[in-house]
Amino acid sequence: MAHTCNPSTLGEINFSVIGQYVDYLVKEQGVKNVFVNGTTGEGLSLSISERRRVAEEWVTKGRNKLDQVVIHVGALSLKESQELAQHAAEIGADGIAVIAPFFLKPWNKDVLINFLKEVAAAAPALPFYYYHIPALTGIKIRAEELLDGIQDKIPTFQGLKFSDTDLLDFGQCVDQNRQRQFAFLFGVDEQLLSALVMGATGAVGSTYNYLGKKTNQMLEAFEQKDFSVALNYQSHFLIYFSCLGFGVSQTKAIMTLVSGIPMGPPRLPLQKASREFTDNAEAKLKSLNFLSFTSLKDRNLEACS
Amino acid sequence: MAHTCNPSTLGEINFSVIGQYVDYLVKEQGVKNVFVNGTTGEGLSLSISERRRVAEEWVTKGRNKLDQVVIHVGALSLKESQELAQHAAEIGADGIAVIAPFFLKPWNKDVLINFLKEVAAAAPALPFYYYHIPALTGIKIRAEELLDGIQDKIPTFQGLKFSDTDLLDFGQCVDQNRQRQFAFLFGVDEQLLSALVMGATGAVGSTYNYLGKKTNQMLEAFEQKDFSVALNYQSHFLIYFSCLGFGVSQTKAIMTLVSGIPMGPPRLPLQKASREFTDNAEAKLKSLNFLSFTSLKDRNLEACS
Amino acid sequence: MAHTCNPSTLGEINFSVIGQYVDYLVKEQGVKNVFVNGTTGEGLSLSISERRRVAEEWVTKGRNKLDQVVIHVGALSLKESQELAQHAAEIGADGIAVIAPFFLKPWNKDVLINFLKEVAAAAPALPFYYYHIPALTGIKIRAEELLDGIQDKIPTFQGLKFSDTDLLDFGQCVDQNRQRQFAFLFGVDEQLLSALVMGATGAVGSTYNYLGKKTNQMLEAFEQKDFSVALNYQSHFLIYFSCLGFGVSQTKAIMTLVSGIPMGPPRLPLQKASREFTDNAEAKLKSLNFLSFTSLKDRNLEACS
Amino acid sequence: MAHTCNPSTLGEINFSVIGQYVDYLVKEQGVKNVFVNGTTGEGLSLSISERRRVAEEWVTKGRNKLDQVVIHVGALSLKESQELAQHAAEIGADGIAVIAPFFLKPWNKDVLINFLKEVAAAAPALPFYYYHIPALTGIKIRAEELLDGIQDKIPTFQGLKFSDTDLLDFGQCVDQNRQRQFAFLFGVDEQLLSALVMGATGAVGSTYNYLGKKTNQMLEAFEQKDFSVALNYQSHFLIYFSCLGFGVSQTKAIMTLVSGIPMGPPRLPLQKASREFTDNAEAKLKSLNFLSFTSLKDRNLEACS
Repeated sequence: MAHTCNPSTLGEINFSVIGQYVDYLVKEQGVKNVFVNGTTGEGLSLSISERRRVAEEWVTKGRNKLDQVVIHVGALSLKESQELAQHAAEIGADGIAVIAPFFLKPWNKDVLINFLKEVAAAAPALPFYYYHIPALTGIKIRAEELLDGIQDKIPTFQGLKFSDTDLLDFGQCVDQNRQRQFAFLFGVDEQLLSALVMGATGAVGSTYNYLGKKTNQMLEAFEQKDFSVALNYQSHFLIYFSCLGFGVSQTKAIMTLVSGIPMGPPRLPLQKASREFTDNAEAKLKSLNFLSFTSLKDRNLEACS
Repeated sequence: MAHTCNPSTLGEINFSVIGQYVDYLVKEQGVKNVFVNGTTGEGLSLSISERRRVAEEWVTKGRNKLDQVVIHVGALSLKESQELAQHAAEIGADGIAVIAPFFLKPWNKDVLINFLKEVAAAAPALPFYYYHIPALTGIKIRAEELLDGIQDKIPTFQGLKFSDTDLLDFGQCVDQNRQRQFAFLFGVDEQLLSALVMGATGAVGSTYNYLGKKTNQMLEAFEQKDFSVALNYQSHFLIYFSCLGFGVSQTKAIMTLVSGIPMGPPRLPLQKASREFTDNAEAKLKSLNFLSFTSLKDRNLEACS
Repeated sequence: MAHTCNPSTLGEINFSVIGQYVDYLVKEQGVKNVFVNGTTGEGLSLSISERRRVAEEWVTKGRNKLDQVVIHVGALSLKESQELAQHAAEIGADGIAVIAPFFLKPWNKDVLINFLKEVAAAAPALPFYYYHIPALTGIKIRAEELLDGIQDKIPTFQGLKFSDTDLLDFGQCVDQNRQRQFAFLFGVDEQLLSALVMGATGAVGSTYNYLGKKTNQMLEAFEQKDFSVALNYQSHFLIYFSCLGFGVSQTKAIMTLVSGIPMGPPRLPLQKASREFTDNAEAKLKSLNFLSFTSLKDRNLEACS
Repeated sequence: MAHTCNPSTLGEINFSVIGQYVDYLVKEQGVKNVFVNGTTGEGLSLSISERRRVAEEWVTKGRNKLDQVVIHVGALSLKESQELAQHAAEIGADGIAVIAPFFLKPWNKDVLINFLKEVAAAAPALPFYYYHIPALTGIKIRAEELLDGIQDKIPTFQGLKFSDTDLLDFGQCVDQNRQRQFAFLFGVDEQLLSALVMGATGAVGSTYNYLGKKTNQMLEAFEQKDFSVALNYQSHFLIYFSCLGFGVSQTKAIMTLVSGIPMGPPRLPLQKASREFTDNAEAKLKSLNFLSFTSLKDRNLEACS
């Protein structure tokens, strides 16, 4: 089951669309797990009180509809991260995720674990996920190294959102923790299929907001070992990404086009996708017959322009 | 006049030492300008309410003693940065400084300027400083490019804390803004002399907490074109830095040793300097005759161990 | 069919083992394609005359035994690269491969293409492969961009050795060139399976020197859609790599242990694998039952030490 | 005294201009030391036999005219580097310089020293210089660390060409080797003055080909502690560099304009400076009154366009 990310962080946040958003994900995309206040949701661009309100809204509106609402509570300040973790527990979230602090950087595994442990301890009953995204944080500590013995320090450790292309590291994480019931959630949407092969148990990414249904079809084909169909889907997705791009601003514009729910502009330092981008994206989505790409045979004829 | 940075951010902040700290800087180090809540002060590791209280304390205790109290109000969240800027104005700070946001990164000058402009506008009467520290932020936009026309967007722009070794960029900043009364404050302590040559108008750095007096002597020698004396100072400082290191944790341990004011441990993800480091540093400071290194002639005899 | 690399570059090159090496690859590993004078073969650490002699020896000894001998002729000097390309043609090699020049770096696609074109033109009848290895060269030009229209400039272009983990780039190369009969050879051995999923047509890597047979079994399982078996192989390989490492020096030591053919020490700036490494590797290979790991079920019991 | 670099590497090398070039440097620029086959001279883009011929020509034509001809003999192949070192000795060069090998990278100081030692040993009577240029090689080993005890391994070690902006490292090199008669040659032309302050004993750079005379005037002012004049020169140079750029291709075009000696185009992967660049540079040089910028007062009026 593909997870999704929450992109609705406007100049001022439009909390009122979150309920509609939940329904869209569940009904139209078949996505029943969300990762709130992460990169796509611009969680780190929000104030702490905004992060709290966004989390509350997703938990409340998702009740009895979503399977899991995981709140990203990472922050540069341990104190704030702990506050958010405790809040996530209070409102009944299903888990918390934490990114490595990345201004003053933990210079080895032990320091990073100590930081994460202090956050986890603020929500001792909630499953804990580590959000590994070295390209944005600059923290190069390998996930495999981090996971080695992590439950001794963080008993609630439950899994990994792995947003990197180092599939050796990812594969070793999977391989060395087979006896444990960890979630290995892959976060580089454009090569999800290659991570499934290496043992990914799920995926968290911005594109599942609008490609969730099709990605679920790919996952199903993969599980049934219907390999060429799975590859067909992945290749099809590549065409999208080549044409449309991945940026958070772009994702929000596309999501608005596809879902009809106004995602609003991003907050600085991001800037709204240009009108030109949006027009192009709309034309491209139509030409790719986005809403029903059932006929996969002719995909080699598509071209970006 | 060397500025300084505020390192007193403890596990829980010990606000009571700040008054003593102000007196120490003024009387013992001849430092009358401070840069609060920056890197050394672990500003980004504090919660917003802690940052407010630290700022208040410095402004209050520094009144009639310090010349300038500049508050660093940069944050990943524009909203929080604006709140801090407004607060700095309310409490009577002398200026604000802002680092580039560095998770979702501004991808060009215009986006960065737009972000900074929004912060500056929240404190329209306060001088505005840009805090340029690309090694920590990963933002590579050159300062020279940023400064080109900056007053059109940010009328309160007053100067730069330049923490980078690219002296071409620094020199061009100085050179292209000679008609303007900007402050060009250099932030790489170990090569301050080389930046003075390129036109630095001041310095902001962690080591001025304990080397302020001696650095002021270097600045004086430089102004009087007593060049070999200035170089002697800089070389002497190099010996310190080689032996003692620069890390924020190390700086706090040294500052405690030198000033007698307990700086307390840093906050995670930093860790307290080891006992071994502190013991070594103490021995080294004694052997270097720290309190009165008047005899500069024998410096080549010093060695790290 | 897995290709292999030539690691026999000794302090002074022991040309006499190359014939034996060919026989070993063909008979014991089922590897019938070789990539000579690349990274593992330390091609860039050899003099031009050495590179010529190594190439000659592989072509001569491989005749009627190997399917393809591709000579890496890349060099910092275009002139030398052209000389090597012409020589490869003269001795009857089956193709040439070229790395991007990486001291003075081509700053865009056109410059890189111009350089490659001049090399290719020196061997106008030989298939041409681009050797993409950005982590070593620092050249970030995406392979997909490079391939767009490449045959207009380099009519002999035949394929890619792709040594990077960016499978989006790789997947787009495959996807956008389906009508053409290019070879997409993957060069990151530890995640070959993930590249097969994205459309790799083959693999070139150092580990196929000693894992060729088993890798061929994985390829076969993959082709027959016997997916869990393929994954079992890939996971098994991960255990090797975790325990043994990948460095060129290490690869040569392992290859010597496994094949019995003395690979000799590498040349500076590489250094011979330590005795400790070799002893450990030997014990590990025995404990992993390297020669006949037919029983894959118990692999989770293996551990590095 | 400023050294210079040899830029005359054409598509095919025009050896005949080297004599004229020597005369120009000595008579017009006051430059009597040259660094041959380095970055500006595109040494690594030449074949070994070309490098030998270029070296011979400079040594021959420089006899009784130049003070020192230092040949860069670094190469990816130790064998070739040794050949070039031996050749430099045979033809009577005054020293050799060696860059760190940078494809397969030395991973620590000892390995790098071992490599350099083997090259030095091939020319046991020639002064040896290490060419430190981490931005191009990617080798981050600090020069200070490398120099610690280097004479035990390389008795002919004579100095450093330091092409980096880390003036702490540079200053420590100078400071920790005061008892030794090493040359500390700075290689980042645009901030030479800042390195002089830290103890540079000379400079090696591409711009001294055409700014040698003026740089010598800056050096003289510096030695006479005529500080504001020295700074005036440095600032003036900044204007050039801002307007004209530093690339090897650009340097050759400017040098041709200024000296009248045809430097010819660079070799791929470099490309000839565009006609547009050359036209602009010519206009700029005229407007800056290049040939006689005696009136320094109006420099703030200059602008790039």
